[in-house]
Amino acid sequence: MYIFRENRGMLLKSLREEVLDANLELVRRGLVIYTFGNVSGVSRADGLVAVKPSGVPYEKMTAADMVVTDLEGKPVDGDLRPSVDLATHLALYRAFPSIGGVVHTHSRSATAWAQAGREIPCFGTTHADYFRGAVPVTEPLQPADMEGDYEANTGQAIVRRFAGLDPAEFPAVLVHGHGPFVWGRSADDAAHNAVILEALADMAAQTLALNPAATPIADARRDLHFLRKHGPHARYGQER
Amino acid sequence: MYIFRENRGMLLKSLREEVLDANLELVRRGLVIYTFGNVSGVSRADGLVAVKPSGVPYEKMTAADMVVTDLEGKPVDGDLRPSVDLATHLALYRAFPSIGGVVHTHSRSATAWAQAGREIPCFGTTHADYFRGAVPVTEPLQPADMEGDYEANTGQAIVRRFAGLDPAEFPAVLVHGHGPFVWGRSADDAAHNAVILEALADMAAQTLALNPAATPIADARRDLHFLRKHGPHARYGQER
Amino acid sequence: MYIFRENRGMLLKSLREEVLDANLELVRRGLVIYTFGNVSGVSRADGLVAVKPSGVPYEKMTAADMVVTDLEGKPVDGDLRPSVDLATHLALYRAFPSIGGVVHTHSRSATAWAQAGREIPCFGTTHADYFRGAVPVTEPLQPADMEGDYEANTGQAIVRRFAGLDPAEFPAVLVHGHGPFVWGRSADDAAHNAVILEALADMAAQTLALNPAATPIADARRDLHFLRKHGPHARYGQER
Amino acid sequence: MYIFRENRGMLLKSLREEVLDANLELVRRGLVIYTFGNVSGVSRADGLVAVKPSGVPYEKMTAADMVVTDLEGKPVDGDLRPSVDLATHLALYRAFPSIGGVVHTHSRSATAWAQAGREIPCFGTTHADYFRGAVPVTEPLQPADMEGDYEANTGQAIVRRFAGLDPAEFPAVLVHGHGPFVWGRSADDAAHNAVILEALADMAAQTLALNPAATPIADARRDLHFLRKHGPHARYGQER
Repeated sequence: MYIFRENRGMLLKSLREEVLDANLELVRRGLVIYTFGNVSGVSRADGLVAVKPSGVPYEKMTAADMVVTDLEGKPVDGDLRPSVDLATHLALYRAFPSIGGVVHTHSRSATAWAQAGREIPCFGTTHADYFRGAVPVTEPLQPADMEGDYEANTGQAIVRRFAGLDPAEFPAVLVHGHGPFVWGRSADDAAHNAVILEALADMAAQTLALNPAATPIADARRDLHFLRKHGPHARYGQER
Repeated sequence: MYIFRENRGMLLKSLREEVLDANLELVRRGLVIYTFGNVSGVSRADGLVAVKPSGVPYEKMTAADMVVTDLEGKPVDGDLRPSVDLATHLALYRAFPSIGGVVHTHSRSATAWAQAGREIPCFGTTHADYFRGAVPVTEPLQPADMEGDYEANTGQAIVRRFAGLDPAEFPAVLVHGHGPFVWGRSADDAAHNAVILEALADMAAQTLALNPAATPIADARRDLHFLRKHGPHARYGQER
Repeated sequence: MYIFRENRGMLLKSLREEVLDANLELVRRGLVIYTFGNVSGVSRADGLVAVKPSGVPYEKMTAADMVVTDLEGKPVDGDLRPSVDLATHLALYRAFPSIGGVVHTHSRSATAWAQAGREIPCFGTTHADYFRGAVPVTEPLQPADMEGDYEANTGQAIVRRFAGLDPAEFPAVLVHGHGPFVWGRSADDAAHNAVILEALADMAAQTLALNPAATPIADARRDLHFLRKHGPHARYGQER
Repeated sequence: MYIFRENRGMLLKSLREEVLDANLELVRRGLVIYTFGNVSGVSRADGLVAVKPSGVPYEKMTAADMVVTDLEGKPVDGDLRPSVDLATHLALYRAFPSIGGVVHTHSRSATAWAQAGREIPCFGTTHADYFRGAVPVTEPLQPADMEGDYEANTGQAIVRRFAGLDPAEFPAVLVHGHGPFVWGRSADDAAHNAVILEALADMAAQTLALNPAATPIADARRDLHFLRKHGPHARYGQER
């Protein structure tokens, strides 16, 4: 039992460090300013989540500041309040067993698509390298969503939108009138995908400005690019 | 009396340092170049205002360069001329007792909205986290405004626009054909809001480019986000 | 005679250093990449011009690399070839006696206006702080201009466009299908104006995107802002 | 024979270093993020190509990581897998004997034009300094292209588009729905051209936003600028 606790302590230390680093990656890449944005990571074996604290400036943040809760949001470790968006993260972890990290940002171009209420079409191979189709957008939240647990209801709106979609093939969603939630195999991978999403959102907006009638690339080509990088037949990168 | 002076000296030193730092924050965040922009802060207890001097490059500016005046603009301390926009700042301090700092910039996206003569709609939750509705724009200044004390008249145009608006719920205005004036609880907070405003202005412009018929988010959702961060029921950030 | 030469040597050294520094300012402000752009400065007393050499990377450039010619372009000092655009600079020095420095860049937004063949309207006070009206654009160059001394003819096209305009009130022009030429009281001042022009061009483009029917500010307001910063009644900045 | 090997070793070392440096230039100039993009260089005398490895982060990349193959893609030296786009590079080296380096990026503005399926018109002299006309775009790839060797087929689509075009006068192409492939006399020169292309793509998009009816500059002016910098009568830069 003592050993178990020690192991758990080491695991939490490692998870917190990864979550801190993924949060700082958003700063380095210019996706967040001041206290915007939040990243979490999950340890599936323990059912524990580490998440950025609410409203703490990135410059002062340490791994110890990451707040640890269970998958229902019950505090397990840490002195600070978790991000106000924690309930949305938890809804995603519960609904999408394959994901290991969640990111929320207000990165400018992705947020503009969310505010415009438009999905981001798969206009090119850069997009297809990461998403097997358009980046989906949720329905607008309804008055009832505002009355209950708003952040949990935001999570439910995302889960409803993903009926029939594989979160491993679509690692992000745009919450209507709000901004992107992004995920990945880990907190680190989720932050990477958030950076890519912002680039795709910007390029797609530029594409539409040049050609309002631009159309998505062919499905066969989209799948070729997606599967070149993902899944059992991937041939991108080095042998692992 | 001697002690009083010493205290006032320390207070002014502290206010000047805060005003200097808020000015430099605008440089760090890319909102101003060369001698553009100006920040002031007020000490309500003393009725004194510290403001950036006119036309001094940011690289050479020290706290001692900040000019101190009373709320009517009468010089109290400092060897340099104050910002030419001081009279606008003073009009805001006199009309809005809750504010502690004022910022004026020509940041690009916010200025573009001011030049376009359009208020910035509340297209999403990022906006609602800071403004309880659209960022207002003044009426165009009239010929008579140019003949008298132009900078004071600019302040009056802002004050007129805020009839019925709470400056704590709308911490900025766009002066028609000019640019943003922004405020906050302190010079520091005002600079923070100026950085946010520029991000909101950019995202709103991108939103309209993607969807010229984009509509503001629902009032209930806007208020939920605003009140999540501001006022007695705020639950964002840590306990204070 | 020996003393005269020594003085001239010192003067040239000083002019070259100022021209080098103004060239590097364009790099620092992101207006030029690789070998794009060129700055010159004139010593009116000597009738000598120092100009950036052609095709030398900014990282390797020294003051000694600046090429010195007379106002007809006759080499006076320096081992390198001058900028290919020198003849345009010289035409401006000969036609506009009040200017002391010339800058040419391909900065992105200003060049876009030049390529669009549109003058930049005075949409706001930021613009009016530097230009007493729209930034003018030349007529397209004609086939005959390509056959003779193209760079000198470019200068003539600018001079023709300035019939009736005061170069001190309009410190830049857009050469149709090419890009901006900018000037000032010195090389340093011209580089400053080139940076401002790029910001104005960007803001004006954003303004039109938000409001295609945007109109210039009133003449009285434009003049108030221009004269607040320039001329005998300027009250911006510190006493000199 | 021993000497031959040693020479080849030195040549490969030099080629790899140049290819590494050209890859890093893309990072420095903001054209690529994470593992995006790839650069190769060819030694025509040896028929050998050095290319970036697949999926290796730029921060960790060394010259020894560059993969060396022959012009058919047969591995000659190096432990890592080459870029997945190698077959496209090789098709270009075989078809265009004058080129010494190839770059592929997903730089944002150039990719937007590729996704929009539009060639980039020669709207100004900045463009004409590098391209003797519009930047061409390939036909969309066909289903058959996806079934065979996709990357080689991408190369063939480029080669087909260049029937009647001189690759020395048009150092880049936009692959429809994908992004730019760029080339030059060397890997270094190709990277330089990729940076320029991105600037041209951005400026052309801004030009169209300001004037949807903008037209290319006159052919005579385009040629004057292109030939001022390229070919036997170039007069830009210093004597070599």
